[in-house]
Amino acid sequence: MGPNVETRMTAKMTLSDTATKPHDRLKDFLAEDMEAVNRLIRTRMASEHAPRIPEVTAHLVEAGGKRIRPMMTLAAARLCGYAGADHQKLAATVEFIHTATLLHDDVVDESGQRRGRPTANLLWDNKSSVLVGDYLFARSFQLMVETGSLRVLDILANAAATIAEGEVLQLTAAQNLATTEEIYAQVIRGKTAALFEAATEVGGVIASAGAAQVTALARYGDALGMSFQIVDDLLDYGGTTGAMGKNAGDDFRERKLTLPVIKAVARADAGERAFWVRVIEKGDQRDGDLEEALRLMQAHGTLEQTRTEALRHAAEAKAALACLPDHPLRDMLADLAEFVVERIS
Amino acid sequence: MGPNVETRMTAKMTLSDTATKPHDRLKDFLAEDMEAVNRLIRTRMASEHAPRIPEVTAHLVEAGGKRIRPMMTLAAARLCGYAGADHQKLAATVEFIHTATLLHDDVVDESGQRRGRPTANLLWDNKSSVLVGDYLFARSFQLMVETGSLRVLDILANAAATIAEGEVLQLTAAQNLATTEEIYAQVIRGKTAALFEAATEVGGVIASAGAAQVTALARYGDALGMSFQIVDDLLDYGGTTGAMGKNAGDDFRERKLTLPVIKAVARADAGERAFWVRVIEKGDQRDGDLEEALRLMQAHGTLEQTRTEALRHAAEAKAALACLPDHPLRDMLADLAEFVVERIS
Repeated sequence: MGPNVETRMTAKMTLSDTATKPHDRLKDFLAEDMEAVNRLIRTRMASEHAPRIPEVTAHLVEAGGKRIRPMMTLAAARLCGYAGADHQKLAATVEFIHTATLLHDDVVDESGQRRGRPTANLLWDNKSSVLVGDYLFARSFQLMVETGSLRVLDILANAAATIAEGEVLQLTAAQNLATTEEIYAQVIRGKTAALFEAATEVGGVIASAGAAQVTALARYGDALGMSFQIVDDLLDYGGTTGAMGKNAGDDFRERKLTLPVIKAVARADAGERAFWVRVIEKGDQRDGDLEEALRLMQAHGTLEQTRTEALRHAAEAKAALACLPDHPLRDMLADLAEFVVERIS
Repeated sequence: MGPNVETRMTAKMTLSDTATKPHDRLKDFLAEDMEAVNRLIRTRMASEHAPRIPEVTAHLVEAGGKRIRPMMTLAAARLCGYAGADHQKLAATVEFIHTATLLHDDVVDESGQRRGRPTANLLWDNKSSVLVGDYLFARSFQLMVETGSLRVLDILANAAATIAEGEVLQLTAAQNLATTEEIYAQVIRGKTAALFEAATEVGGVIASAGAAQVTALARYGDALGMSFQIVDDLLDYGGTTGAMGKNAGDDFRERKLTLPVIKAVARADAGERAFWVRVIEKGDQRDGDLEEALRLMQAHGTLEQTRTEALRHAAEAKAALACLPDHPLRDMLADLAEFVVERIS
């Protein structure tokens, strides 16, 4: 049922109608582990003294996100033959860190405007988002300490720093036309790839996998995360087809410098540059500007170039798995890397 | 219950002209260590990729707070005969955690009102405060991992959870007349005592002090922190003399349930209770209400009772030092415990 060998990454992956999506297959395969992780999440989220905490987190933690990050940890550990239970603690750790960053991402400025779908912030205030996020960070910290692995702690501490640095960088890069592809890469590494990377890496470390396998897992997680985020940013402009979904155009309206725009700005002539300065730097956006932006990106081929970047990272992710054991989980991880970019095929 | 305990301390204390303040003597004694800590703070605060980070933190970290928390770690380690350098990393860790909580404390609600002295927030936005705070947390996490002590990590992870829980609890306890003295104790433990306790405890642990000494240091830190915060809350009502300083009355206006009020509410008759419901729960405050609140607290002796509590904690702090080595640092720590409550003598 897996994609055949001749299939090139650039070709549209065709899963037969009966095939389940790779993350659903991961979920089924790891069902028992995931149940234990969900129990851990519920238990550790609770606070005897501060009942507001589960109130704020419940809709985030229970709302049935895909739990893709904790699954990465579980899959990595199992794939490396781990038979203990500490990988469940690490999976819960990773989900808590993810939820905490979502909560902190929800904090809005007094002067700021919020667009798009509801955030925790519409239901609770800034202060609760910050403090409950801090609580989840602290809880995640306790969980990882319980594994007793200094190496795991080191990996997650470094990931936490990369995440925070990336978030601050994103703040300063917004509305700034001087943002380079290099800065963009740092931003999305912090925003997405660093936690994916740490999630898979600690799975290998807790399983006492060899150095080459741990490195391979880290590379897989990083490349998968990069691919994930680039696809996400591309879809915000409707992908290469320009068929805009319902939330599409958010990044444009928020004047974010994502890869398709950065590439278009780099190729802009004087008139085009004036356009970008007006809509992104000055924030003076009028009717038809999004369409004009799309036209410029199509003209310079930057949506297609962005897609190529995403495919490159996905291929890297898949290639990294080569030195890992032959195992159903390895196939699922490989399929997942293909599935991520399928959305933009 | 403003977070800057030290700042207020200088504003309100009265000391004989000849005596050096205990924290100044600690600073002199630990000058070399503190210089190394300050270097560490500057180095680790820097971010290659995100120059906004030192911008936001500089005024907090450099502004010459008393650095009382990192001094606690240094003093505890030296007092237990430590000759290494990891206590400096832990001292920087503790200061980073403190600064991060100040930044997160600065986040304001969209609907909220801010009173009193300027916060980082007047200069930078909510989002920067949150994300730079997260960055400092991550940096502190990296620093402690570098010491390689799982016990230290365990202590600091638990402190982080207590701090976050206390902050959330404070949020829910505000404006709530049902707040008990027990809840108040949990709030100020999270707000102040937990970090003082962890600061002294990790100093002992890194010095490989015996179990009794480590426990004694933890007790000292906790009791000192409790005393510190109770004094601060008492001074917000002008201490037992009712001589209100320039920032006094902040807690009343922010409808915070601190110890003098909690005790007065517990002793209130029907008419007094109606007063408290109006000014604290409903927030309907008029001219003369602060004076009336003070009159009620004086009438029930709750300022005096609060002072007794602060003295009890200070005495506990001092007593805890008994099993520690005879050392100039021990005397300074004992003097510090006395000094904290001197402000309300």
